[in-house]
Amino acid sequence: MRIAFLGLGIMGRPMAAKLASSGHDVTVWNRTAGKIVEGARSAATPRVAAEGAEVVWVCVSDTAAVEQTLFGTDGVEHSLKSGMVVVDSSTISPTASRKFAERIRTRGADFLDAPITGSKIGAENGTLIFMVGGAAETIERVRPLFMSMGKQVIHMGKNGDGEAAKLGMNMMIVLIYEGFAEALTLTTKLGVDQKAFFTLIQSSMVRSGVVDYKMPFVEKNDFSPNFPLRLMHKDIRLMMEAAAESGVELPALTTANQIYDEATAAGMKDLDYAATLQIVKKRAGIK
Amino acid sequence: MRIAFLGLGIMGRPMAAKLASSGHDVTVWNRTAGKIVEGARSAATPRVAAEGAEVVWVCVSDTAAVEQTLFGTDGVEHSLKSGMVVVDSSTISPTASRKFAERIRTRGADFLDAPITGSKIGAENGTLIFMVGGAAETIERVRPLFMSMGKQVIHMGKNGDGEAAKLGMNMMIVLIYEGFAEALTLTTKLGVDQKAFFTLIQSSMVRSGVVDYKMPFVEKNDFSPNFPLRLMHKDIRLMMEAAAESGVELPALTTANQIYDEATAAGMKDLDYAATLQIVKKRAGIK
Repeated sequence: MRIAFLGLGIMGRPMAAKLASSGHDVTVWNRTAGKIVEGARSAATPRVAAEGAEVVWVCVSDTAAVEQTLFGTDGVEHSLKSGMVVVDSSTISPTASRKFAERIRTRGADFLDAPITGSKIGAENGTLIFMVGGAAETIERVRPLFMSMGKQVIHMGKNGDGEAAKLGMNMMIVLIYEGFAEALTLTTKLGVDQKAFFTLIQSSMVRSGVVDYKMPFVEKNDFSPNFPLRLMHKDIRLMMEAAAESGVELPALTTANQIYDEATAAGMKDLDYAATLQIVKKRAGIK
Repeated sequence: MRIAFLGLGIMGRPMAAKLASSGHDVTVWNRTAGKIVEGARSAATPRVAAEGAEVVWVCVSDTAAVEQTLFGTDGVEHSLKSGMVVVDSSTISPTASRKFAERIRTRGADFLDAPITGSKIGAENGTLIFMVGGAAETIERVRPLFMSMGKQVIHMGKNGDGEAAKLGMNMMIVLIYEGFAEALTLTTKLGVDQKAFFTLIQSSMVRSGVVDYKMPFVEKNDFSPNFPLRLMHKDIRLMMEAAAESGVELPALTTANQIYDEATAAGMKDLDYAATLQIVKKRAGIK
């Protein structure tokens, strides 16, 4: 298929590379120039990249960047043709995503919100999971592309529901990690052996991929960014906006947000979100 | 070995039965009469049960019950002999546990705090995990008993640290579940398909034994008690006490505690702690 891939960040670049190496005809674009993908053409603007494409895949940083890429001066909209499919793998506001879908559809094209989980490694190995909002038949049309980049496609509902599911998943990550941070802080203060507590976590029902992944870094006090705190903080703000719009209270998430605020104020925004542990520890007078 | 087993509740009874069926000479006692264990003698008081025992195993409901069982009018203390080992598998205050250990030691006996995880099923199958505070050599002396009832013994540190680890683990359960409850409420309100969201959870890094276990009950709206809300609420209070004593702030746990308060006020204390989802949903105007 002829594909425009827009956004060559940590996730986008390996995703575009997977499409190109699967034999698709890929044109890439990135906001800041200089990034290339082997086997893919480069284009100067989203508009140019999308010209003649059957599918336009977007993977950029936030709601404003998606809007600019799709509807800006040199945006995709100018190249939209009936029958095209636009897929957005960015993590953005569900409400905004729904509006973007509507605007795309007025041009006779289709839209899927398809945020991802699986991290950089999953993008490189082609083992991403896509949580998708939109029409089932549109998903079927681009399924081969999903399967070039990932291992699973979960249909969450109508447009926006892919984004909503992604926010729900990240909310669970935030609170699983915050629970771990508070438990580790209290048990450490009380004198429990940290390695023994880690063994308990890994032997029992509180084990999760979230803590499995972070534990070795926590042991080494290594908070170099894998999932930067500022991005998780952005997602928390999206969750809280979505909650406010829909009349939902998120008490524990709201509390966790204050930890992220404090971490940001302490200059930690470019560390991993796991560094929020340091705030919980600091409040307890540890270190 | 000659063992006194004190407390025949949901966990205690199958534990005592495992010891008896492993060929030990077991005498049991329970606060309310009428409960028996096949192959074990019954005694009228902790004092009588503990007479001549090498090991006294306690598994009762809370700190006050442990104190009464050990040091009450007809308590274990009256039968303590040098060389005896007292093991407490109740979930109680780490500070209180440490004091009990000291008092037991003044009589020449040894003490381990050894709370458990694995639920009723784990007790019946002998697959419990013990998190133990106390001396390594005391653990070795009773290791055969641990292994009759469980599959793993984790040495957490000095007396009280077993209890502290248990509180840490339950804190993680509370916040994993609260994160699930908030995420499920927001995504449901936004229109995400619940089954698809469950599939996402089970496919991704947020999967845990906690949610795996509760999910089928949540799907059926079945909140009949497996781990009653009032007991988890008791544990939350122990966590908050321990935190206050040691100068630790537990922001997300404190917020979750308010949900448990509200659930208790709404008459849910004898339901499963999973029923806290209903409070989060109610606040969002769902159902």
